[in-house]
Amino acid sequence: MVLRLSISDADFDQSFDALVNARREADDDVSADVRAIIRDVRDRGDEAVSELTSKFDGHDLEQTGWRVSKAESAAALEGLEASLRVALELAALRIRDYHEGQVPDNRDYMDDAGVRIGARWNAVERAGIYIPGGRAAYPSSVLMNAIPAKAAGVEHIIMVTPAPGGYINPLVLAAAELAGVDEIWRIGGAQAVAALAYGTEKIKPVDVITGPGNAWVAEAKRQVYGVVGIDMVAGPSEIVVVADGRNDPDWIAADLLSQAEHDPTSQSILFTDDAKFADQVTTKINEQLQVLSTSATATTSWNDNGAIILVDRLEQAIPLVDRLAAEHLELAVDDPDAMFRKVRHAGSVFLGRHTPEAVGDYVAGPNHVLPTGRRARFSSGLSVTDFMKRTSFIHCDEQALANIGPAAVALAESEGLPAHAASIAKRLDRR
Amino acid sequence: MVLRLSISDADFDQSFDALVNARREADDDVSADVRAIIRDVRDRGDEAVSELTSKFDGHDLEQTGWRVSKAESAAALEGLEASLRVALELAALRIRDYHEGQVPDNRDYMDDAGVRIGARWNAVERAGIYIPGGRAAYPSSVLMNAIPAKAAGVEHIIMVTPAPGGYINPLVLAAAELAGVDEIWRIGGAQAVAALAYGTEKIKPVDVITGPGNAWVAEAKRQVYGVVGIDMVAGPSEIVVVADGRNDPDWIAADLLSQAEHDPTSQSILFTDDAKFADQVTTKINEQLQVLSTSATATTSWNDNGAIILVDRLEQAIPLVDRLAAEHLELAVDDPDAMFRKVRHAGSVFLGRHTPEAVGDYVAGPNHVLPTGRRARFSSGLSVTDFMKRTSFIHCDEQALANIGPAAVALAESEGLPAHAASIAKRLDRR
Repeated sequence: MVLRLSISDADFDQSFDALVNARREADDDVSADVRAIIRDVRDRGDEAVSELTSKFDGHDLEQTGWRVSKAESAAALEGLEASLRVALELAALRIRDYHEGQVPDNRDYMDDAGVRIGARWNAVERAGIYIPGGRAAYPSSVLMNAIPAKAAGVEHIIMVTPAPGGYINPLVLAAAELAGVDEIWRIGGAQAVAALAYGTEKIKPVDVITGPGNAWVAEAKRQVYGVVGIDMVAGPSEIVVVADGRNDPDWIAADLLSQAEHDPTSQSILFTDDAKFADQVTTKINEQLQVLSTSATATTSWNDNGAIILVDRLEQAIPLVDRLAAEHLELAVDDPDAMFRKVRHAGSVFLGRHTPEAVGDYVAGPNHVLPTGRRARFSSGLSVTDFMKRTSFIHCDEQALANIGPAAVALAESEGLPAHAASIAKRLDRR
Repeated sequence: MVLRLSISDADFDQSFDALVNARREADDDVSADVRAIIRDVRDRGDEAVSELTSKFDGHDLEQTGWRVSKAESAAALEGLEASLRVALELAALRIRDYHEGQVPDNRDYMDDAGVRIGARWNAVERAGIYIPGGRAAYPSSVLMNAIPAKAAGVEHIIMVTPAPGGYINPLVLAAAELAGVDEIWRIGGAQAVAALAYGTEKIKPVDVITGPGNAWVAEAKRQVYGVVGIDMVAGPSEIVVVADGRNDPDWIAADLLSQAEHDPTSQSILFTDDAKFADQVTTKINEQLQVLSTSATATTSWNDNGAIILVDRLEQAIPLVDRLAAEHLELAVDDPDAMFRKVRHAGSVFLGRHTPEAVGDYVAGPNHVLPTGRRARFSSGLSVTDFMKRTSFIHCDEQALANIGPAAVALAESEGLPAHAASIAKRLDRR
């Protein structure tokens, strides 16, 4: 049975707190294992990667090949069914358009004191993208990671993906080809992250690693953070839907299940002000679960982590929604903009009755790699700036230094840093 | 003796590789100790913080007081010597101006398919800033961390700083008052980072933690990354100066020493095309080291980590500079812009003969919290966006969903996610 709360329950605050603080992330401490794998790859390079691949993915890289050839990925794209190719190309086009608009402007101006200051953006040289194998081998993830890197101006995009038995989903290869991935390696897990971060004989190190993965991959990314840049620490997916009673319960049921079908740890929460509508959605969910091929996963997720929360007025949902700081937030109401203006914390927001979250997973344009587990309080979805960095600059002429230098000398002296002070004072003395 | 290389040396490539790869960061593994401290603070809250403060900072928080009162920080600002107050205010003003210009624009547009998409920026609610005590208790660091948070729109800025014996440098308090810090706590180390990340009875958790610290603080920030946002993993400071022979060797010597005086692990590297100028700089460095009050630190840093690299033409320095990806890069040449255009990796660049790096530490405006240890290849200086996050949004009406929905249905089906497909298809069917 799914959790059902009402804001008028006597113990609502405690129950809602429990929901907010429930940790759906695996607590098993993989950090020691991951540390050992990373050390092994740093020490022994390709040899370690090859052994770990045999052990975890069950294939011999010397047999299956370390890299997917350009011919193989080109063939995967050529072999795509026509309707799927059209869909993938539309997705790629729209993702590219949106992300190209994210490239930040440089700054360069002279201020009142005559100091020229600014900042200039550059892409990183090499980006590594991790794409899971098995259940979550999604071509859409390839597009969502590779296209922003390309839009940023990254020259070399290196994809790693575990290939159980040597096999990689051709859709993933087709997406990589379409997105302009430069190298594809049949490796995965913490060993692939280590290889990308530190490099091996075969694999040159990258500057940034992005992309989804299991607990081991996430922990490996966390551990190499600082050696390379990473996108974020990702956890189980989630959706919060705020819906009034004038929605079709069948639609909202599907929206909630679209999140639940991802993983047993996914979470779907419905806020509504209409108890009868809540009942109708529950009925529709149970109906849909009967026919869904992903029913086992979706049922577990919905029963274990789902929730329906009744409020008297939908506005009451807003502070609660902010506390959840969800990855996906759907506002299925008449005036979604008015409600959105009051929301502060969410990864991505889906406005109105005709914007199911799934449209954002594929073709809307904005990135589907989004902060989970309440991290939308402080972090953002993947963007081109994750593949870029900013260099600030300062240019003083003699007069500008005369204008601002004495203050810097005073502060340097107060901090007990005489060489700092001298480097300015010597130039001021010369005037 | 400082390292001296020439690009015409037979073994230059190996020697330069060794310089690039030299790790100046402490390798002592503090991660287990830090993990234990964080666990202790999560389990026992204030009690653990109090015990750890007694142990590491040598004072009893019940005696010295957990928090610095508003009256105390206001008095520190009032008590400031007039010239220092003017300098601090100029710095604050210029830092604020520069960082206010960093606040990113929101996006909101309708595309060709009739889909409205965009992104909206919001500040985090609570920011924690870590300010070291002891040798590196710098008021400038307070300004450089607190002012961007304020410019971002953060409502609550919480500063922590270790107070050996209960003492905090009044300059640090004055800077906090001037920058609008809301709370100041007399705690430091990994225990302060843990308290900010997880909260205790007295201290409410924050969303983002920034600011410099020793190896323990850096490791603690790394370990809580994901629970909160952090600015970056910082290491020892460094400067690279590219100078032709038409500079005053006394100025360039001071610039190199201004970095060397920070810490024995700091690094200063000079590139020049003039061997005689290199000799003059060496002489001036030795002269200045005689009189510098920070001479012990600067001498160790310069001898152990410094380098002078002779090139035939200054253009040859550029790819080498890029490989070093230095925190600070000074281009003391006639046409610094031409050279800057060719540089890709640097934290902050100081253009021309009248822009000593130290001016950027205090009053120029851009942030002095910059990527170190070659991390400028993939990361940027601290900015207002470190205290903000982006929420993307999508709004389809019936027609827009009809335009892009079918492609999403096709992709969802190909990924084996039927509820994703259904959430769109049900809406398309209704048309």
